[in-house]
Amino acid sequence: MRFVRFTADGSVGWGVRDGDRIHDLRAHATGVPSYGDVASAGYRNRVRDAVERGSLTTHDAEDVKALAPVAQPGKIICVGLNYHDHAEEQDEEVPEKPMLFAKAPSAVTNPGDPIVHPADVEQVDYEVELGVVIGRTARNVEEADADDYVAGYTVVNDVSARDAQFEDEQFFRGKSYDTFAPMGPALVTGDELDPNDLEVECTVNGDVKQSSTTAEFIFDVGELVEYLSHRMTLHPGDVISTGTPGGVGIFRDPPELLEPGDSVTVSVDGIGDLTNPVVSED
Amino acid sequence: MRFVRFTADGSVGWGVRDGDRIHDLRAHATGVPSYGDVASAGYRNRVRDAVERGSLTTHDAEDVKALAPVAQPGKIICVGLNYHDHAEEQDEEVPEKPMLFAKAPSAVTNPGDPIVHPADVEQVDYEVELGVVIGRTARNVEEADADDYVAGYTVVNDVSARDAQFEDEQFFRGKSYDTFAPMGPALVTGDELDPNDLEVECTVNGDVKQSSTTAEFIFDVGELVEYLSHRMTLHPGDVISTGTPGGVGIFRDPPELLEPGDSVTVSVDGIGDLTNPVVSED
Repeated sequence: MRFVRFTADGSVGWGVRDGDRIHDLRAHATGVPSYGDVASAGYRNRVRDAVERGSLTTHDAEDVKALAPVAQPGKIICVGLNYHDHAEEQDEEVPEKPMLFAKAPSAVTNPGDPIVHPADVEQVDYEVELGVVIGRTARNVEEADADDYVAGYTVVNDVSARDAQFEDEQFFRGKSYDTFAPMGPALVTGDELDPNDLEVECTVNGDVKQSSTTAEFIFDVGELVEYLSHRMTLHPGDVISTGTPGGVGIFRDPPELLEPGDSVTVSVDGIGDLTNPVVSED
Repeated sequence: MRFVRFTADGSVGWGVRDGDRIHDLRAHATGVPSYGDVASAGYRNRVRDAVERGSLTTHDAEDVKALAPVAQPGKIICVGLNYHDHAEEQDEEVPEKPMLFAKAPSAVTNPGDPIVHPADVEQVDYEVELGVVIGRTARNVEEADADDYVAGYTVVNDVSARDAQFEDEQFFRGKSYDTFAPMGPALVTGDELDPNDLEVECTVNGDVKQSSTTAEFIFDVGELVEYLSHRMTLHPGDVISTGTPGGVGIFRDPPELLEPGDSVTVSVDGIGDLTNPVVSED
């Protein structure tokens, strides 16, 4: 099921997308879902019934503004070096365990909204990533049970100021400037896709820069939920950004970084395209 | 003014501490404060009037359980190497700009609650830090105006699994295990103290391990708010943990790490003592 968060008629809503129509959940007894609801087959069945009965108000998808599926994640945990080809382009060995870092939740940006190129850095880069949105509180979860704790999947652009990232050595600042976490356009539940076998792509101004598949994951979604939940509690609305494949701008020869005027699209097969223009800081 | 968050009679409240008494804000027209309220002189004046009139229910401070002043920070931003003496003990040069990293908000722990020593790491260490709790949304704030955006100050123990921190190189995992962010026992407003001239101390089982003063800060609170708010928006309830002085366990010769059975107390003059026992993971 494809959940979307959007604004229409001046207020924020949740809906279910079916083709070009969005079925609005605001006025229905099923209500606005929590991330736990999205993770619940029972809730999804009730919504599916309402959609099939045609009992929900609908919008043309083109008439609403899509929003990030999580406005304020409790935390955004990113995984470094999680694609075999990205490790190769950096001449890094395949890690024995997931390498983690954090992105500030205040960096979340909606589809279509600008990525603001900060004035104090030069090297702003793109990273297409599959995002995992947690649906149920997860502590010490085993890999085989991980699906039960996931609300759904989205697309994240892990925008990164490389000069800040490398200067600080700690990645946090370079990953956390405002607008550096575009997320969307949908939250797709696990019954619609296999998160470990999805094509991912990034284009800048229409030119393909990254093209891979999550089948290249070093640590798949189940392994990440197990590893993380044995170290820290995952709460509903937390986001795991699962790492990026090869082809990022900084490791191209010569480097190709984002500049004001560019348009960057990150896509995950079965979830959709997330496009953001790059603008300069005023 | 000394705000405290606590549980009494089975529910969570906020109050104002005056000597050994806590004036309970739950039943009064002033209400439970937001972090913006705490930052507001007008709100504090109304509370002060109520306290002076004796119109609020009071508790003996020993009869309530103190809680962390922020249960779920939007983000916890930590500053590395922010005391001259801590830079010296690591043979590090004084940094030209604040070095930032993040701690997971899910790591917050209350005063008196256990620090759980995880089974998968060996080197659990203490770090006394002055915590700055943001009261108003801060973006591009100048140093001179920083006080207006601060709700108040608290004590943070930036508990750190050194082996995880150094193995990952990124500090996030080692700093973010559950219970690794004890915080409290009070939220003291800036009219009661000078955050850049406070004695800080850490004791383990009564032995002094860290003893310094925030006058040793490389970047003071105003400089940190300016630097951070020019890079990412600070929201009410965000916490800046301002770094730790020399004397941490891992750099002692021989190293002195925390073990189950230890009791660790971090203190900041004018705010109070934050004591937590260390227990093993079951």
